[in-house]
Amino acid sequence: MMRFAIGIDIGGTKMLAALGDERGNLLAEMACSTHNVHGGEAGVTELVEAVAVKAGLRPQDAAAIGVGAPGPMDLATGTLLNPPNLGWGTVPIRQLILDRFGVPTMLTNDCKAAGYGEFRFGAGRGTQNMVYLGIGTGIGGCVIIGGQVYVGATGNAGEIGHTVIALDGPLCGCGARGCLEALASGSALGRLGQEAAATSGGQLLALVNGDVKAITGAHVAQAAAQGDPVAQGVFNYAIRGLGAGVGNVMNAFGPERVVLGGGVVAKNGSGYVKRVEEATQGFTLRGCGVPVVAAELGERSGVLGALAHAWEQARTHK
Amino acid sequence: MMRFAIGIDIGGTKMLAALGDERGNLLAEMACSTHNVHGGEAGVTELVEAVAVKAGLRPQDAAAIGVGAPGPMDLATGTLLNPPNLGWGTVPIRQLILDRFGVPTMLTNDCKAAGYGEFRFGAGRGTQNMVYLGIGTGIGGCVIIGGQVYVGATGNAGEIGHTVIALDGPLCGCGARGCLEALASGSALGRLGQEAAATSGGQLLALVNGDVKAITGAHVAQAAAQGDPVAQGVFNYAIRGLGAGVGNVMNAFGPERVVLGGGVVAKNGSGYVKRVEEATQGFTLRGCGVPVVAAELGERSGVLGALAHAWEQARTHK
Repeated sequence: MMRFAIGIDIGGTKMLAALGDERGNLLAEMACSTHNVHGGEAGVTELVEAVAVKAGLRPQDAAAIGVGAPGPMDLATGTLLNPPNLGWGTVPIRQLILDRFGVPTMLTNDCKAAGYGEFRFGAGRGTQNMVYLGIGTGIGGCVIIGGQVYVGATGNAGEIGHTVIALDGPLCGCGARGCLEALASGSALGRLGQEAAATSGGQLLALVNGDVKAITGAHVAQAAAQGDPVAQGVFNYAIRGLGAGVGNVMNAFGPERVVLGGGVVAKNGSGYVKRVEEATQGFTLRGCGVPVVAAELGERSGVLGALAHAWEQARTHK
Repeated sequence: MMRFAIGIDIGGTKMLAALGDERGNLLAEMACSTHNVHGGEAGVTELVEAVAVKAGLRPQDAAAIGVGAPGPMDLATGTLLNPPNLGWGTVPIRQLILDRFGVPTMLTNDCKAAGYGEFRFGAGRGTQNMVYLGIGTGIGGCVIIGGQVYVGATGNAGEIGHTVIALDGPLCGCGARGCLEALASGSALGRLGQEAAATSGGQLLALVNGDVKAITGAHVAQAAAQGDPVAQGVFNYAIRGLGAGVGNVMNAFGPERVVLGGGVVAKNGSGYVKRVEEATQGFTLRGCGVPVVAAELGERSGVLGALAHAWEQARTHK
């Protein structure tokens, strides 16, 4: 029988599964709602089972299982610590899967899984050192050094979204002011768009029939693309913030390439990535500037990264 | 004959030399003016010779020679690219030393040498992952990952002084706005002190007999310590900036420890370092906060780091 592993990506709204060999060739993929009828974590083991069945295999025969999920989490024990995006409470997800299938299992942060997926199979292929930023509701980071996900001595390194770039800037969900996430994430675009529309009006209000609280990051992007100066102010501030944040990454980490992924990138396309790359130029030192490129795997970067992590796990358990 | 190596630290005003064995035991140390009678780079080879003679040894018998100098430089060829702090023009310093003594020689950035010195012999001993910030006229960085100086794929990583922490902050010498160096270096303290005193007066003016342009970072520190609110405003802003910058380093690199060195730290002592450590607390994510400590080797961190680098060089040439 061929050797196979399984990757699972747990998102706020849906879960993805992929089953494949060590080179990333897939035999089966599946998706389901995160909040399915059986509720939360039970759905994860069901999904593992379902994707194996779809491939005509038994989950017990998997070489390893990799799971990416939103934090916070205890990586050492593989326990989800009540991630706000899931509402599952504290779940020893690694142990649950191990008990059910008897297969080595590892848990990783969803953004680090996505970055590793892009590194192995997407826009980071061919590098040994890259940085991935996932720009969605929040901003997560994944730093690859020497072909490995870098987590530092604390196990928590790579949190680029929570590096401060505007000391007196907007308040972030983490409690600090001016984190990259507080300026340039999808939710920051929405919140800053609401504030700007409330004081300056403009086309944003028309898009939501005057309901300021309904303005989202997507509205800001749309109105900015249509030439609304209020929305452009918010959008350009985010781009400039990303220029500084990505420039900081280049000066500090010296990667070969920076990959931008996540919902905001998917929605705004290559022109957006090009603008961020241009914005870094005012912030990088001589010899530090490197290409900024768009992620290539779309919403599958996380599940493919989880699969690649599963294989890493399998190698260490041989 | 015992095996020995030589480290040289070229500073803007003086040069230091140290000769020692692989474990850092020193047989001789020397210092001289950078701008001595024989002018610039010729003084470096003279200093190499002199420190060897002082130890009763011949420089030709050294296992290796390590040189730390201010940038910019081409690390691959070991060439100084007209460092503004030296005024020597472009000097192929590695080749000059190699030609003169026939000993393997390596050139490194002065701040990276200082960080490596602290890592090997000073405040970073016992770690495998640490970050050093040298806070003087400018702010330089040295990132140690897995016991090695991390330079990234570009060879220029670790430039923490040129990470942006205040998007619309003071202009930096590098051309960007709001770099850590532009807020918190010694020269930034002086410049921001001049601006504050020009508009708000206060004790700073008295310290320089009304000559605003004479205000330095040392005056700002002194007046702040004496309770002058204008100087305290500038000093506290720098501390808060360092809190954000060092917090960013913790979130991004996940080191075991952050070491602060350089002239500003030497002058302001452990109370200053303690304040920076406290200021990081508003910026670090859960599980990312680590100790911030003062450098231990004073002005010798660079020359001892250069010596340690020389031994690294010797090992690779065995």
